Amino acid sequence: MSASGMPLAEPDMTPLETEETLRRSVRARLDRLTKPQGSLGRLEDLVVELCVIQGDLHPQVSQAELLLFAADHGISDEGVSAFPRVVTAQMVGNFLRGGAAASVLSRLHGCGLRVIDVGVDADLDPHPLLQQSKIARGTANMLHADAMSTAQLQQALQIGRDTAIEAIDRGNRVLLFGEMGIGNTSASSLLLAGFSGSSLAECVGPGTGLDTAGVARKLAILEQVRGRSAASPPPSDPVAAAHAMLQRWGGFEIAALVGAIGATVAARAVPLIDGFSVSVAALIADRLAPGVLRRCVFSHCSAEPAHAHLLRRIGVEPLLSLGLRLGEGSGALLALPLLRSSVAFYEQMASFDDAGVSDRPKEDGP
Amino acid sequence: MSASGMPLAEPDMTPLETEETLRRSVRARLDRLTKPQGSLGRLEDLVVELCVIQGDLHPQVSQAELLLFAADHGISDEGVSAFPRVVTAQMVGNFLRGGAAASVLSRLHGCGLRVIDVGVDADLDPHPLLQQSKIARGTANMLHADAMSTAQLQQALQIGRDTAIEAIDRGNRVLLFGEMGIGNTSASSLLLAGFSGSSLAECVGPGTGLDTAGVARKLAILEQVRGRSAASPPPSDPVAAAHAMLQRWGGFEIAALVGAIGATVAARAVPLIDGFSVSVAALIADRLAPGVLRRCVFSHCSAEPAHAHLLRRIGVEPLLSLGLRLGEGSGALLALPLLRSSVAFYEQMASFDDAGVSDRPKEDGP
Repeated sequence: MSASGMPLAEPDMTPLETEETLRRSVRARLDRLTKPQGSLGRLEDLVVELCVIQGDLHPQVSQAELLLFAADHGISDEGVSAFPRVVTAQMVGNFLRGGAAASVLSRLHGCGLRVIDVGVDADLDPHPLLQQSKIARGTANMLHADAMSTAQLQQALQIGRDTAIEAIDRGNRVLLFGEMGIGNTSASSLLLAGFSGSSLAECVGPGTGLDTAGVARKLAILEQVRGRSAASPPPSDPVAAAHAMLQRWGGFEIAALVGAIGATVAARAVPLIDGFSVSVAALIADRLAPGVLRRCVFSHCSAEPAHAHLLRRIGVEPLLSLGLRLGEGSGALLALPLLRSSVAFYEQMASFDDAGVSDRPKEDGP
Repeated sequence: MSASGMPLAEPDMTPLETEETLRRSVRARLDRLTKPQGSLGRLEDLVVELCVIQGDLHPQVSQAELLLFAADHGISDEGVSAFPRVVTAQMVGNFLRGGAAASVLSRLHGCGLRVIDVGVDADLDPHPLLQQSKIARGTANMLHADAMSTAQLQQALQIGRDTAIEAIDRGNRVLLFGEMGIGNTSASSLLLAGFSGSSLAECVGPGTGLDTAGVARKLAILEQVRGRSAASPPPSDPVAAAHAMLQRWGGFEIAALVGAIGATVAARAVPLIDGFSVSVAALIADRLAPGVLRRCVFSHCSAEPAHAHLLRRIGVEPLLSLGLRLGEGSGALLALPLLRSSVAFYEQMASFDDAGVSDRPKEDGP
C-alpha cells in the first residue's frame, strides 16, 4: 500500500466514519471501561484525537519514527546563537553515533530515528540512519538576502513530503518531528511574528542559552532582518504569503518540516510535534492546508518563551511541560509513552460487563 | 543483601557522599553531556533527585514495582462515594485478571504489580499477584467510632513497611504506590485537613465522580465525623498526633501506605507517589519521619481539587498534570517512563569531549 494514495482505503482500516460519529464511538467505548467515566482525563481526549487523526477506531501507535531534519542558517554569522555553526554538523554525527539525547530516548522508547540533512554546512559521510538531501550548505544570510530561492523552497517542501510518506510506507503510523540547526530559533521567531502578527519581542528568546544581552542583540538583528523586506509586503493570497515568508526567513529544515507535517496529516498518520521550531512549522503547514493543526498532537511546552505564546495563540495545551529547550525531537520522544499508554488502556482494559464490576453509582444516601 | 539493613552499605553502591557533594557531582556530569546546559529542564532536576534519594551517582530505575493497597471504609455506608462498596473487591479481581488501567499500564511499562489486601470487605481467592494481609473487612464507620484500633493501626503500618522492604529485596529500586478503596477520598480529606490546618471544604472533592450535591452531602457528613472527635484534641507530640488522626479517620490502605513510603525512603529506594490519597500518606509519613517528603517523587497532579491544594502546600510541582482521577497508581505508572528517560540520557549521552562537539559558546558578535 502507499500512504500517498487514499489512506482510508487501506485494507486494514475500518470504513470511513464521519468525524463526529467516530468521536462518539470512541467515547462510548471509553465509558464502558472499568474506571469512573472521564477519570483518565487528558489521556481519554488523546485517544479520541488519535482515532480521529487516523480515521480509525483502533489507532496504531506502536511503530513510530523520529524524523530529525538538520540544516544551517546564514544568519548564524551574526552571533544570534550561543553556539557556533559547526555544532550542527557535530551534532548530526552525535545523532548517528547514538550519543545525543534524541538517540538515547529513541532507543529507550523503541522509536525509529532518521536524520535528514537538508542543508548542513559540511560534507557528511554516508550512514544508515542519514538521508542525504542537502539543498545547499546552509541558507543565505537573511540580513542581506532572502534565506532561500523559490526553487530551494519547493525542493525543501518536497523533501519533507517525500520523507514523511516514505516513513509511513515503512509502517510507521506516528511520526515524531525534530530539528537541529544552529540559529534556527531566529528563523522561527521571524516566521511566528510574521504569521501571528505578534510583536517580534514576544517571539524572540534565548534559544540554546543566550543571556539577556544576547537576546537583546538577537532581537536587534532580527528587527534589521525584518526591516530589509518591509518595503515589499507579502502577497494577500495566504499560500503565496506563506511561501514568501518561508523564502525570506525560513530554514531548510523548517520548510522541510512544513512539507512533512502536511503530508503526515494527509496520509492520516499522527504528527507528534516537538518544540518551538517544529510548532512554527505546524502553524505554517496549517496555512498551506487549513485543518492541519487540528490533526497534530503537541508533545510539550518548551522553555523558549515564544513557544508558550504560540501554543496559547492556537489554543493548544500540550501533554508535557518540563522546561525543555533542547529540540532534536526530545519532547516528542518523552511524550510517545503517553500516546502508547492511552491506546493501551483503551484497547486492553476490561469493560464493566466483562469484569463484573458495578458501573452504576449507588443510590445516594445511606 | 537486605534493604532493611544499612542500605548505603550495599556492595554495589558508591560510597556515601554528602548530599551536597553528590548533587554537585551529578550536575557536573549533566553539564558535560552534549546539550546546552540545563536544556533538559525538569528531567535534569529529576536525575539529581533520583541520585540523592538512592545515595548513588548511578541510580537504578529499570526494575520497578507497583504496590497497590486495597481496603474498604466503614464510611462508605453513608453515601460519600459515587460507587458502592462492592466495587473495591470487584476491582481487586480486575487488577488480578489484568483488565484494570493499573494492570494494562504496568504491563506496557515493564513494571511489577502486587495487590495487597489490607481490608477488603470480601473473601478473596489466592492469586500469585495478591498478598493477603487483611486486617479486617473494612474500617469501622468513623461517623460513629474510630476507624481503627491502636493495634490495627500498628498492624497496617507494619504491613506497609514489610511489603515495601520485601519489594526492595526483590531488586526493585523504584516503588510505585497506588490505592483502591471505595470511600477513601473521605478519609484522605479528613486527614489532609487535620494535618494541614486547611478547612475541610478545601480538602473535599468529587472523588470518583460525585456531582455538586453529592460533594455538599459528603462535606456535611465529614463535618459530622470531625465534630465527633472535636472534644478530644490530638496529642501535642507530632508522632502521637499522627497516630491518633490515622486511627480516627484513616483507611487501612492509607496507613499501610504511610508505613511503606517511610520504609522505602529509609531503604533509599525511590517512592513514586500517585494521586491524592497516596500524597496524603506521604505527608503523614513525613510527620512520622521528617525528611521523607523531600525523598519522594510526585508523579502527577490529579483532578481532585484537594490534590493541587496539598501539592501547593508542600511546594511540589509534580511531573505530569493530565487531569487524572483514577488512583490505582495510574499516574505513577504514566510517570515511570520519565524517570527512565532521565536516567537513560544521564547515563548514555556522549560528553562534549567524547563526541568532539564544541561546548564553548562562540564569541558574541559577527
